[in-house]
Amino acid sequence: MAQQHLDPPTGPSAGTAPTVPAPPAQEGAPIGDALAGYLRAQATEFLRSLRQHRETGNAAGGAGESGDAARSLRRSARRISGSLHTFRPLLDADWSEAMRPELAWLSGTLAREHAYAARLDRLLLALNRLSGTVALPAQTGPGPAAAPKGGLTVGAAKAGALLDRQLTLARTRAHSAALQALGSSRFHAVADSVAVLASEVPLTPAADLTDLRPLAGAAQDRLADAVSALPLVTAGHPYNAEALVHGLSADTAPQPQDAPWHQVRLLLRLHRYAREVLHGGEFPVDGRLFGAGQALNRHRDAAEAAAAAASAARTPRIAPATAYALGVLHADQRHEVEAARFAFQQAWQKEAVRTP
Amino acid sequence: MAQQHLDPPTGPSAGTAPTVPAPPAQEGAPIGDALAGYLRAQATEFLRSLRQHRETGNAAGGAGESGDAARSLRRSARRISGSLHTFRPLLDADWSEAMRPELAWLSGTLAREHAYAARLDRLLLALNRLSGTVALPAQTGPGPAAAPKGGLTVGAAKAGALLDRQLTLARTRAHSAALQALGSSRFHAVADSVAVLASEVPLTPAADLTDLRPLAGAAQDRLADAVSALPLVTAGHPYNAEALVHGLSADTAPQPQDAPWHQVRLLLRLHRYAREVLHGGEFPVDGRLFGAGQALNRHRDAAEAAAAAASAARTPRIAPATAYALGVLHADQRHEVEAARFAFQQAWQKEAVRTP
Repeated sequence: MAQQHLDPPTGPSAGTAPTVPAPPAQEGAPIGDALAGYLRAQATEFLRSLRQHRETGNAAGGAGESGDAARSLRRSARRISGSLHTFRPLLDADWSEAMRPELAWLSGTLAREHAYAARLDRLLLALNRLSGTVALPAQTGPGPAAAPKGGLTVGAAKAGALLDRQLTLARTRAHSAALQALGSSRFHAVADSVAVLASEVPLTPAADLTDLRPLAGAAQDRLADAVSALPLVTAGHPYNAEALVHGLSADTAPQPQDAPWHQVRLLLRLHRYAREVLHGGEFPVDGRLFGAGQALNRHRDAAEAAAAAASAARTPRIAPATAYALGVLHADQRHEVEAARFAFQQAWQKEAVRTP
Repeated sequence: MAQQHLDPPTGPSAGTAPTVPAPPAQEGAPIGDALAGYLRAQATEFLRSLRQHRETGNAAGGAGESGDAARSLRRSARRISGSLHTFRPLLDADWSEAMRPELAWLSGTLAREHAYAARLDRLLLALNRLSGTVALPAQTGPGPAAAPKGGLTVGAAKAGALLDRQLTLARTRAHSAALQALGSSRFHAVADSVAVLASEVPLTPAADLTDLRPLAGAAQDRLADAVSALPLVTAGHPYNAEALVHGLSADTAPQPQDAPWHQVRLLLRLHRYAREVLHGGEFPVDGRLFGAGQALNRHRDAAEAAAAAASAARTPRIAPATAYALGVLHADQRHEVEAARFAFQQAWQKEAVRTP
């Protein structure tokens, strides 16, 4: 297995000179071998999940096992795609350039169904919290507030029903789209390339002598640069009321202020995958990265939930009470966005451990 | 003037034995004299403001000068009433028991007009902020969010117009109610008692020998007890989402969770007035008390603004877009409530300076 990646790569660009400005690896430095091993492992996992999904996927609703299979299919697809990107110079260029968008298309298609289900859960949970129908955390002082009373108002109930209809419909459509994608020739082409990857990673000739750390470090630098562009000073001041600005502005597009945070979320993921490549399976989980990643996931989920509430409120002929509840819900989720930025700022400012 | 308060108090309960468990005053301790001086000064200020208000009050809208006069009339009424309460045992009991509710009625009546005006300002300002039509604070990173664009949406504009109608009407009614009160025989009775107070404070015989600090200390203790009952642990965790619980609950009454905070606001005020009595005109402003008081005022204002948005949303036959905007506005103000609690917790935990 060790020399398998030493075979000259096949394909049009066989023997392309590596464009990587990388130093010769020192003793014990992670080299191409580690990358090949990681990619083979992820490709194998991809194929395993695919088989599992084929066996369970056509079960109605794509729930349970089939859902797990889709999740781990996405998981390995993201890791393969991310590694192809971070370590591009070490891989057959044409091959990886062709493969990445296909993997992105696949994991995107598979992600949607789960996303709609999670969004609906989040919104219904929030509606219950806002109606005081769930118990509050321990130390919340005055009795009256701590004791949930009353139920959903008519408005909250109608808002919940409306969101349920809209997001369940979207989820069902996403499910059939995912099944269709998995049956498409486009998907079979992806699966075939992954199958190749599972046995033979198209490394460039010099890759096996190349220290992986500079490329992993570059991924970490891209992350650091993007983070330094975030408004962390504002985010570090609780209740800065930043996230709800434009909460009532006329344009219905996703809030532009969210974009840099979403970008950091993606770069953080690439950095994490690069660390997996370098350190192989067993390496210390970086609590700081974990916390920061959790905060950015929450940021993304809350932002999308807030947008869903806003768009539900644009449904024609809804009752004012329903619209009011959706307005409260939208603002609540935008404050979740603000809270997530605060949480990220708190996690990020913790002592950084630079271990690419 | 110094011996004026030594005259035997007039009135039914002349010569009532003091019920205060106060030690004989040590050398240099603030005694009844200080209380009498403070009450006389506040009474004089009350009468001055009253004259000013009479000269300007009937100007349409009660704006400008007349508004200032009403404000300082309230200011001195609150201080007289508060001091009568804190130092009750040193004053003719029947007289002060009779006077306090009348002063409360007066300042309450005079306060309403200003309160409605301030509430409308706060809500319209928030609507503009939520529509991204006001500039954002300095360090807010990504350009798009920082550059205000678009205007008020139809919903936000209609919500603003609705709140304007409702709160302006309430304000006008409060204004005529205030003018009526100032013309009533009930008010003239209050004014007469204050006039008496300006020349002759009905202290109990022993008051002039009594150390004021124990009674002032008791007021401070009542404040401390009420604060210790607040959910400050929760309040100290940013984004605890506490204030919006019940944001959609069926009952439309003011949120019970706000009451203990409003109570602390009143006790903080009594403590401040007691310090004024002890230290006379010139004494160091306690930044901690000031910050805490500001936070509690903001808490009260935001809570009432949130309630106004919610009740406007119950107006029959409003458009869904209007209701949606009012829902966002309500949630925004409830988050202001939460932010104010956080600010209070931050101010309060600062090193306490015990100076009754």
